[in-house]
Amino acid sequence: MKGLVYGGAGQRTWTEIPDAHIRDPRDAVIRIDAVTICGTDLHILAGDVPEVTPGRVLGHEAVGTVVERGPAVTGLAVGDRVLASCISACGSCRFCREATYGQCLSGGGWILGHTINGVQAEYARIPFADLSTYRLPRQVSSENAVMLADILPTSYEVGVLNGRVRPGDTVVVVGAGPIGLAAIITAKLFSPAHIVVIDKAESRLQAAKILGADVTLTPERVALGAIRALTQGLGADVVMEAVGSPETFELCTTLVRPGGTVANIGVHGKPATLHLEDLWIRNLTITTGLVDTHSTPRLLAMLAAGQIDVTQLVTHRFALEEIEEAYDVFARPGQTGALKVLLTR
Amino acid sequence: MKGLVYGGAGQRTWTEIPDAHIRDPRDAVIRIDAVTICGTDLHILAGDVPEVTPGRVLGHEAVGTVVERGPAVTGLAVGDRVLASCISACGSCRFCREATYGQCLSGGGWILGHTINGVQAEYARIPFADLSTYRLPRQVSSENAVMLADILPTSYEVGVLNGRVRPGDTVVVVGAGPIGLAAIITAKLFSPAHIVVIDKAESRLQAAKILGADVTLTPERVALGAIRALTQGLGADVVMEAVGSPETFELCTTLVRPGGTVANIGVHGKPATLHLEDLWIRNLTITTGLVDTHSTPRLLAMLAAGQIDVTQLVTHRFALEEIEEAYDVFARPGQTGALKVLLTR
Repeated sequence: MKGLVYGGAGQRTWTEIPDAHIRDPRDAVIRIDAVTICGTDLHILAGDVPEVTPGRVLGHEAVGTVVERGPAVTGLAVGDRVLASCISACGSCRFCREATYGQCLSGGGWILGHTINGVQAEYARIPFADLSTYRLPRQVSSENAVMLADILPTSYEVGVLNGRVRPGDTVVVVGAGPIGLAAIITAKLFSPAHIVVIDKAESRLQAAKILGADVTLTPERVALGAIRALTQGLGADVVMEAVGSPETFELCTTLVRPGGTVANIGVHGKPATLHLEDLWIRNLTITTGLVDTHSTPRLLAMLAAGQIDVTQLVTHRFALEEIEEAYDVFARPGQTGALKVLLTR
Repeated sequence: MKGLVYGGAGQRTWTEIPDAHIRDPRDAVIRIDAVTICGTDLHILAGDVPEVTPGRVLGHEAVGTVVERGPAVTGLAVGDRVLASCISACGSCRFCREATYGQCLSGGGWILGHTINGVQAEYARIPFADLSTYRLPRQVSSENAVMLADILPTSYEVGVLNGRVRPGDTVVVVGAGPIGLAAIITAKLFSPAHIVVIDKAESRLQAAKILGADVTLTPERVALGAIRALTQGLGADVVMEAVGSPETFELCTTLVRPGGTVANIGVHGKPATLHLEDLWIRNLTITTGLVDTHSTPRLLAMLAAGQIDVTQLVTHRFALEEIEEAYDVFARPGQTGALKVLLTR
């Protein structure tokens, strides 16, 4: 079988790898039917996630078909079409019992394409399969479902829920990549008054408008002035960081109103400066987080019911073996207009 | 009349000042009966709060007697003994209506001894007197009540409530000055399993033990190891910063468990480094805040009922005109053992 192997900073190759097989009674092996590339994979390639070592198969967002299951797996059958979530979970440790599956203490959490081989491959081993996969209803396409492997629950839980978006809020999303766009889709569930999106790429701002942003800004324009004009001079109620750089994080802390929230969603490789000399007095809440995926069943139900629409997110489609080309397209969104790129068998 | 006047970084003098008088129909003038010095006053003298300009009378924690009231004041009578809160509030702006009085948009918030003359004086003008003062029940002494002008509500709201202390938590308080000690008193209301206190001064750690800390550490000892030993290696559920320095803030972010909260209470004059490269994935919540004093009526009721005990906090007592000496004692807690210093008429 083949997979996309990380070879150290900047290097990845579609190449022959050992077959996926059951190692633990709770494992399943799935045949990958649809898989995407995540902005996090680009952070890995940039060296921002040192836990990923050369030789690792990347990828943590897939839909597949169960081809083998361990003897302790009770909720899946061979042949089931399943969403393979970016978060694996033992289900029984202290953090899993508190529904913070992303922090699983027993070998789960974000492991696929991080600390074990991932799903950008022909087949993949999925640990803790009962909790790490979701059987898909017939009416949900694999292309749509794969948007729930990471970006929808991440933007919803780490951005919208951590940010405590409320009706009437002015919400700012810094970064209109797939995560930022998914944050628009899920923030709308709470009926904000304004969704302001900031990005360098005009193509992404266009996508943000289509998905529901009412104000789009490039960083060069005076974002603070524009946001103050919308908010009686106060600043935004909720600001989401969906880039992962010190500069964008620090921008977020200048755009938020007293008493507001900065919800960091971005993957960071460097420290940022926290201007406590200004912020200590401003009743700010700053949150960080890896997704827990406690919302995935609910998002899946909303997707099946048509309450959320993810059909605008995939811009480029490839065959699985064209994944190196897909990386090239995904890594240059300014030129290619890429949002999510989809690989299918 | 006389007051303690800020003369620029490091300078303060007890000297003749213009008489306090009503300027707005909502003002009252009080005769100061009991007043304290706050760690924030030391931050002002260190130049950490540039909004305070030379000539300002300092002080924002007092109990006094109403000697004059403006025509719009309806809840107070001349002769009433009142707590003058560190927070003044118009009561009707958007933030006051949301009970975030500290962020009052109409000239309130923390103004006493900050943007207008404060209460380290023989008399003081108290703006928005109906909302900025609390009539004191007979059984609450002025000495005890003045602990509710700032340190009790601040530690409770900005530390304990923002930190979301829950039964069974391991709570760490970094800094055992009066705010840190008040955080112990108010954290205990939520029945944590452990209260760990970190400070350089042994006298303050002794006070922390008396107030309910079960583990006390000097920063030199390996705090992280001690806290991990209490928490199955995870870190503290809630860490409160009660110093106001980049080093102590950064220490707090290393002591907290995944999914925990760092509640900043300290007044800061410099930025800190936020290690997002480690923290982005840890589901952290960081809060900052000026107190809103929405809890003051409730704390006052608990004080009157004996449910909270603040009698350990005042270590030194002076006559009001000895305030310069009191500042000297308060500024050197390592040598003097000072916690709160009380000035009375």
